[in-house]
Amino acid sequence: MKKYQLMAPGPTPVPSEVLLAMAQPMIHHRTPEYEALFTEVRAGLKTLFQTEQEVLPLACSGTGAMEAAVVNTLSTGDRVAVVRAGKFGERWIEICKAYGLDILELGAPFGETVPAARVADALRREPRLRAVLAQHSESSTGVLHDVRGYAAATRGTDAILIVDAVSSLGIADLPMDAWGVDVVVAGSQKGLMLPPGVGFCALGEKAWAQTKTSTLPKYYLNLTEEKRCVAKNEAHFTPAVSIIVGLRQVLRMLAREGVPNVFRRHDRLARATRAGVEALGLALFAKATPSPALTAVVAPAGVDSERIVAVYSEAHNITIAGGQGEMKGKIFRLGHMGYAAEFDVIVALAALEQVLADLGQPVDFGAGVRAAQKVFADRA
Amino acid sequence: MKKYQLMAPGPTPVPSEVLLAMAQPMIHHRTPEYEALFTEVRAGLKTLFQTEQEVLPLACSGTGAMEAAVVNTLSTGDRVAVVRAGKFGERWIEICKAYGLDILELGAPFGETVPAARVADALRREPRLRAVLAQHSESSTGVLHDVRGYAAATRGTDAILIVDAVSSLGIADLPMDAWGVDVVVAGSQKGLMLPPGVGFCALGEKAWAQTKTSTLPKYYLNLTEEKRCVAKNEAHFTPAVSIIVGLRQVLRMLAREGVPNVFRRHDRLARATRAGVEALGLALFAKATPSPALTAVVAPAGVDSERIVAVYSEAHNITIAGGQGEMKGKIFRLGHMGYAAEFDVIVALAALEQVLADLGQPVDFGAGVRAAQKVFADRA
Repeated sequence: MKKYQLMAPGPTPVPSEVLLAMAQPMIHHRTPEYEALFTEVRAGLKTLFQTEQEVLPLACSGTGAMEAAVVNTLSTGDRVAVVRAGKFGERWIEICKAYGLDILELGAPFGETVPAARVADALRREPRLRAVLAQHSESSTGVLHDVRGYAAATRGTDAILIVDAVSSLGIADLPMDAWGVDVVVAGSQKGLMLPPGVGFCALGEKAWAQTKTSTLPKYYLNLTEEKRCVAKNEAHFTPAVSIIVGLRQVLRMLAREGVPNVFRRHDRLARATRAGVEALGLALFAKATPSPALTAVVAPAGVDSERIVAVYSEAHNITIAGGQGEMKGKIFRLGHMGYAAEFDVIVALAALEQVLADLGQPVDFGAGVRAAQKVFADRA
Repeated sequence: MKKYQLMAPGPTPVPSEVLLAMAQPMIHHRTPEYEALFTEVRAGLKTLFQTEQEVLPLACSGTGAMEAAVVNTLSTGDRVAVVRAGKFGERWIEICKAYGLDILELGAPFGETVPAARVADALRREPRLRAVLAQHSESSTGVLHDVRGYAAATRGTDAILIVDAVSSLGIADLPMDAWGVDVVVAGSQKGLMLPPGVGFCALGEKAWAQTKTSTLPKYYLNLTEEKRCVAKNEAHFTPAVSIIVGLRQVLRMLAREGVPNVFRRHDRLARATRAGVEALGLALFAKATPSPALTAVVAPAGVDSERIVAVYSEAHNITIAGGQGEMKGKIFRLGHMGYAAEFDVIVALAALEQVLADLGQPVDFGAGVRAAQKVFADRA
């Protein structure tokens, strides 16, 4: 018996109690039962997004919600700055290109970050910028970008800050209203530990104002219409009912743990993972603040990281992820987000020790686990 | 005890075996396990859509798939004809308007249809038409439009036929390739008896050719990119994994029953429902070929149809649907699609007899059920 373990940076495991909630008989979305459920979900989402604004769930993946953020707030030819330091930064660029926006690339080598000062400088030099687009956690590199700094830089300018928090919502602290983030985008399959299929957009006042002049075409992803319906406790189009049912369960679990504790848990898991990886002599890929959602690790010299992913799967029945795009073959990524706890990290590191040995690498067995244990033992 | 019964025209009940398949531990979408699943799903979808073409599943509702059909095949300013004889015909118009298309409305009063001759005539008078958009089953009125006739009318013209089969796929026969339908759009929550959250697009050669010149902006719903990925047995963006897992189960169930038998079952259920309703002295709303997916019924004089829906729910724990838009208060709709069988129709009609009596209407108890039983007893 090799128990299956999903340790990729999303989709993440779904707790059994959530799976079973979603396995209840289908209900219709225009019934008092669904309305009661949606009322609870809306309140829970506001708490989680740390906003007074309505959070809009959409039946789409995170990328659909990213597109919704763009097409609802911007107009053809608008000048926008994109923080590009990974595959998901590139996705912002692809979306903006598809809609004819005029892009200022604020690039950094993958694994690094773009300092807030560079964003502030760009906004000073180009006052006609209408938006800054960035990731919070860049899942392809394992870096956490300085969203708080970006928000401070955009405040008082004509630009809104649009943040892809797909792999940070419910993982890393992102107080939307307090920091002044104008748009937060998220997805169901990371910190929310649900199946993929629901994306979220939350817009602040400045972003809602910008929707009024936005000329980009939209219908399915029209957030103004969605907001109008959500205010009536409905969805504009048929919602992904089963995932919303699961979401209620997840929001209850997160409320029980307490959102600040959820952030602390992820921070501990990430620190323990990094300590374990480094104790095994491997290098972290992140050259900037590492993300608490996942750890990207450089494969040992002469080892194709795809082999590491394959041995994790074939020998140990554990799914992790390799590198994407230009990082393929060079890095592997361990997820520790959502339904993830201390002993999952222990398993991931114990497996890593085995995998390295299987691949003929020198391994000090137990060293990775020991380093993680020390992090967990420190209850401060 | 009042057993909950979902008898709305979508979302429809999900079979327990499908619910439990979806409640299995989450798997990652880039694993051999998912690839094997997706291979089977792709083959099953081709059978169900009756096409040699690849059927593209998208993480969105049916409306998202409708939008995908438009933005991938058309260009700004294109002239298009829309068959408008219900709320979903209006949805085509709204989508086309949002993307700046030039619309020729082929309208008919709700409950009626637009004959194929009118479509053919429009195409003769306006050879620059690039598309005809229609519903197969118009869920808001319970009418089945003459898609076969529309296909014959568009064949040999420069226009493609785009059909919303959201409430007819796996319910009414729609041989895409044989009839020459250029685009078929469907959703997960009707004939496929799954939770809402996945839409489908299948395009024929003529439609794929038109995608090459399409200038409308798209990213999340880019079908050319999706096709490229599906050909590699992948999805472009994170798929709605749990629903795709359920889809495999559903496709197996439908294959076991045999797709022609599935159509025959729906036809019987619809005929029995209509016979029962008429035996109770009520009038059908459909003045044209009725849809086998649902039956729209005119409320008795002096009775608000919303009251009928409410009593079904409050007294009998059964969800049916009322009228939408201009039909609100006037009609109610009984779904008999997807996971629906003979005794579900019996229950719906027995409940209708009770509901009418509850509302002070004269009722010949058993008359509705008897009429349905006679339809079922005829095994020809």
